[in-house]
Amino acid sequence: MVEKKYLHLSASFLTEQGVEIKQPVAAYEEYGNPVGPVVLLCHGGLSNQHAADVTDVDKAPGWWDKLVGPGNVFDTDLFRILSINAIGSIAGSTSASSINPDTGKPYGKDFPYITMVDHANFLKQVLQELGVEKLFWAAGLSMGSLAVMNLAVLYPEFVGAITPVASAPYMTVGGMAIHNCFIESIKQAEGWAEGEDNNRAVRNAVGVMSMISKVYYTHYSLFESMTNDIQGQEAREKFLTEYLAAGQEAYADGHNANAVITCLRACNSYDIGKGYSSLDEAYARLSMPALVISTDTDPEFPPQYGQQIVDGINRHYPGNANFYLLHSVYGHLACVLEGEQLKEAMMPFKKKLLAEQ
Amino acid sequence: MVEKKYLHLSASFLTEQGVEIKQPVAAYEEYGNPVGPVVLLCHGGLSNQHAADVTDVDKAPGWWDKLVGPGNVFDTDLFRILSINAIGSIAGSTSASSINPDTGKPYGKDFPYITMVDHANFLKQVLQELGVEKLFWAAGLSMGSLAVMNLAVLYPEFVGAITPVASAPYMTVGGMAIHNCFIESIKQAEGWAEGEDNNRAVRNAVGVMSMISKVYYTHYSLFESMTNDIQGQEAREKFLTEYLAAGQEAYADGHNANAVITCLRACNSYDIGKGYSSLDEAYARLSMPALVISTDTDPEFPPQYGQQIVDGINRHYPGNANFYLLHSVYGHLACVLEGEQLKEAMMPFKKKLLAEQ
Repeated sequence: MVEKKYLHLSASFLTEQGVEIKQPVAAYEEYGNPVGPVVLLCHGGLSNQHAADVTDVDKAPGWWDKLVGPGNVFDTDLFRILSINAIGSIAGSTSASSINPDTGKPYGKDFPYITMVDHANFLKQVLQELGVEKLFWAAGLSMGSLAVMNLAVLYPEFVGAITPVASAPYMTVGGMAIHNCFIESIKQAEGWAEGEDNNRAVRNAVGVMSMISKVYYTHYSLFESMTNDIQGQEAREKFLTEYLAAGQEAYADGHNANAVITCLRACNSYDIGKGYSSLDEAYARLSMPALVISTDTDPEFPPQYGQQIVDGINRHYPGNANFYLLHSVYGHLACVLEGEQLKEAMMPFKKKLLAEQ
Repeated sequence: MVEKKYLHLSASFLTEQGVEIKQPVAAYEEYGNPVGPVVLLCHGGLSNQHAADVTDVDKAPGWWDKLVGPGNVFDTDLFRILSINAIGSIAGSTSASSINPDTGKPYGKDFPYITMVDHANFLKQVLQELGVEKLFWAAGLSMGSLAVMNLAVLYPEFVGAITPVASAPYMTVGGMAIHNCFIESIKQAEGWAEGEDNNRAVRNAVGVMSMISKVYYTHYSLFESMTNDIQGQEAREKFLTEYLAAGQEAYADGHNANAVITCLRACNSYDIGKGYSSLDEAYARLSMPALVISTDTDPEFPPQYGQQIVDGINRHYPGNANFYLLHSVYGHLACVLEGEQLKEAMMPFKKKLLAEQ
């Protein structure tokens, strides 16, 4: 099993809004060649840093297992691969579940508002303290792709190449809408406003989010293929009910409600043009090679948003950015589940990066 | 204002599963020419029989206001138009909110399982008791379109013409999946299993369903057009949060949780082939003119399902069925909101029906 590591940062973390988070911690995993060029992997908003389990895949699958390994896209023979839990996220980095040193109690719903700029700054700070002077390549999916984009815009000299998967230049309003449903459903749960984050009502809200996610983040054609062999509407109904409800308790255990809110709001804040005179000024900073990957059925990051990034970059650096479209029944989740297509998209990009090194 | 009427049926209603519902009541509205040919309108699963307010549109808009009126598609000068609340639904027909004559208490979660065949049989019984010998035309949307389809398959001699809008020959599994999320979220609410149907947790579940519906049942491009003029992600987030949460309390007031479950499960049961040797045998019964309308962005009833109905009918009665595709940012809700396109689709169909009368 890959070990989860913790880095205690040497200084406080200052959020974009000027709030000081004391004694920040980053949870992360590390794979591959410790002295190789560094590749950063960034996880999705409801996920964590367990990108791959290179020693024991079956026990705890990582979200990009199919892309990490010897000779693979994220080549463990060549690269030092770092996968860092986002600040405010659910899996070990400082978040709503952490103890606030000022009060001795968990932050809970009072955890500071974290933006995608904060995600990028946190990653930068963590990577520096891990001794990384420059990233050879940064890749991420969904929320992680937004972190990669912001990191590259803010610190272009630090990021050698980018692969945002399921991405956009600013948070899509469609995605923001579903995020806000989830955020509101947690906030409305009885007890949440009084500080409870793990009572039945709050856990139910998180559990319902997990069910809705299984529908919203895929595509109806997935359900068609899943139920092709089931005869009769009542049998289909039973199958779907069980499939949707499965794992809800474990999901609520693993997804602190306030950390969920923190991550979804961070996504909502995302706009690479923020702080610049225009979106175009942000694109002008993206001088590194870019491979942008979208999925035809993704309702949260429809392909035209990925294409916008490519067009924006190529206006300034013709040919620097390439677009790859996944065809999938998995909708948004194709960014995790379409391993073969992702490999097909990324392998030539990796080879090109290595050749130009 | 159009008056809501109640019909107390003369006999018990026997469900498809053999359960007797005593003293059944149908809530309905009636518009137009009392002695004209009869047109039946059937509402959606989370909606009610208020299809039109022909006298005072602004006070209480009906879902097909744009199609009902003198000289309009559903011509109040010509037709006797009946819009009937589905059995088990939220707005006056016998449902989970009704008093069970055997116990003197509301049925609550013990209201019998109602199928779409029951919807059709209930409509037939109500129409007969209202003195209707034959329908000139039956039209409906979403759940109502399924009722129209089942009515026409079960009683082809009774139904002169059909216009199912947002429809399919059997419930789509994608739609079933989102229904099951909503059903489960209510069932998981604290107190529901003990018989509570209006406590905070259950109302929250219904309220969250109303928010999710605003996202799932439209299309992300709607949110893009709604927020085009709003600058900045935080302002967009605020707007969306308010838009999504608006009306939740009123929605929970108007949508009894168990009636919601009843209607969603009825949709899930839908399959016109049920009780026949094949789907094709069901199509063979649909000898009346049909206009089937779908929407390009509808995730619940994607256009290929509407096209299936048309192809199925035309295999037996070439040219009898026509397909019309709405282009809309409203997704599933186009069946209510795209009044002009619906009018364009239905007006020639109405004229043809009148000419062939």
